[in-house]
Amino acid sequence: MSSTNRFVTETTFYVRYAETDAMRIVHHSSYVVWFEEARSDYTRQRGEDYANFERQGLYLAVTEVNARYLKPAIYGQRITIRTWIETLQSRGMTFAYEVLNTDTRETHVTGYTKHICIDGQGAVKRIPEAWKKVGRERVKITQLRQKKQHYNG
Amino acid sequence: MSSTNRFVTETTFYVRYAETDAMRIVHHSSYVVWFEEARSDYTRQRGEDYANFERQGLYLAVTEVNARYLKPAIYGQRITIRTWIETLQSRGMTFAYEVLNTDTRETHVTGYTKHICIDGQGAVKRIPEAWKKVGRERVKITQLRQKKQHYNG
Amino acid sequence: MSSTNRFVTETTFYVRYAETDAMRIVHHSSYVVWFEEARSDYTRQRGEDYANFERQGLYLAVTEVNARYLKPAIYGQRITIRTWIETLQSRGMTFAYEVLNTDTRETHVTGYTKHICIDGQGAVKRIPEAWKKVGRERVKITQLRQKKQHYNG
Amino acid sequence: MSSTNRFVTETTFYVRYAETDAMRIVHHSSYVVWFEEARSDYTRQRGEDYANFERQGLYLAVTEVNARYLKPAIYGQRITIRTWIETLQSRGMTFAYEVLNTDTRETHVTGYTKHICIDGQGAVKRIPEAWKKVGRERVKITQLRQKKQHYNG
Repeated sequence: MSSTNRFVTETTFYVRYAETDAMRIVHHSSYVVWFEEARSDYTRQRGEDYANFERQGLYLAVTEVNARYLKPAIYGQRITIRTWIETLQSRGMTFAYEVLNTDTRETHVTGYTKHICIDGQGAVKRIPEAWKKVGRERVKITQLRQKKQHYNG
Repeated sequence: MSSTNRFVTETTFYVRYAETDAMRIVHHSSYVVWFEEARSDYTRQRGEDYANFERQGLYLAVTEVNARYLKPAIYGQRITIRTWIETLQSRGMTFAYEVLNTDTRETHVTGYTKHICIDGQGAVKRIPEAWKKVGRERVKITQLRQKKQHYNG
Repeated sequence: MSSTNRFVTETTFYVRYAETDAMRIVHHSSYVVWFEEARSDYTRQRGEDYANFERQGLYLAVTEVNARYLKPAIYGQRITIRTWIETLQSRGMTFAYEVLNTDTRETHVTGYTKHICIDGQGAVKRIPEAWKKVGRERVKITQLRQKKQHYNG
Repeated sequence: MSSTNRFVTETTFYVRYAETDAMRIVHHSSYVVWFEEARSDYTRQRGEDYANFERQGLYLAVTEVNARYLKPAIYGQRITIRTWIETLQSRGMTFAYEVLNTDTRETHVTGYTKHICIDGQGAVKRIPEAWKKVGRERVKITQLRQKKQHYNG
């Protein structure tokens, strides 16, 4: 999975104690919650807040989650999640994630989530144009990214 | 807090690994989730399923939670929650809980939750008669409880 | 993914209210927690309680999670998870899951989790023989399963 | 509960979608998790990181949680938690919290948590001097707070 030539957001926060488990590491389900928060933040950084999306009566329902666990994170450390749109179709999209140790930049987890656009009755809908622009503006976005000094592997 | 002369349900389940934290014990917020599941089960055992309550457009919103932690529970053990209605008003009610080790009957946590009856717009409503009966039928219920061999401290 | 000719456990419970989200359905991360509880229950049903496994100083660390979401589950319904061991290596294993509506037998979610056996210092270890037997006893297990009237698709 | 003349930290973050429930509001157990993150942040802001506390083999075990729910928070909004030490004893302490809407400053929830200092074996211990200073430096801290323009009700 490559994030080349795409807009990549970074979301940084501390591990919460409640997110750990009896192995003294972050519980593996916490990363799935973090993926979701990372894509919420992606939409906020892009100016297309997902909360507004829902106010229009549309939802990006999750159809698949995948996470690969490379190195455990622990309480007391900071997490940075790099998030980008991997693919964009007319009715669905795939977000990809790298969960890093903020300080060492080591990768804890990589993953992706697949989504389909539905309305409140569960009917599949086209993704609105304003949202599709998010996936198209690669060059412009790349420039924006460079200004923000985001790493782009 | 006394449960004398009231209907007391028991709800039993295993601790989930995700409910533990880095102290190798059950995270204190998990008991709040368990209280909720215990009162869901209370309504199922009483024949007044809370899911049906919501289908009528009513909700028992939580207005207060209190939990006292006496002895930590751990992964691998079974939990039994004793649940009863402590007080019942026209528009609100209080549930009380004892969280026990199923095998040793030691108390892990005691607590209560206060609730107010609201509709979908948040307006305060009277609790329906069918639900209020739950709090009144003490003697009959006590007999039922004795048949079920529930302890009644 | 096929569960033919393998031991398949079934674990049944009610959806908890805390497991839902603002789409009024079960949050997608809840299924990851349920997978874990389903494999805990698998080990209990097989007589090889995972809690005992940890008491020996061994852990089955999660290296990958995958979940495909077919149909949302909601509060008030019962869930049955069918769980089996998909593959078993000397140092790792894969569990597979089908999350069903207990009453209609519709499939909500399918998924798998991959695991590696480690000790408390994170060193990779061989899975103990007692545990490996779990994956081998297929025919005997199938018979056991039929007695329990588990469906085997 | 008054926060007059005490050091008060503010911790701000977005509501996560996973923290909501089928009432379309933040689930009441989420605030208990937020309390914990708020007091973690309190210790970081005071230069006495709780993660370091645990590295010394000490824990602030939770002995009581109380939360009063005044107004529901929803996905898409920002939360600010005001946190202070309400009481400090030789072996225990009480943290108090106000959970506010960051933009409107309305109060969603108020609460407190009581703690006891224990070691890894569960034996009750004195709180180290460095930590007790946190509760004593009121005047100096108040000045610090005023510089930071924290409200002090």
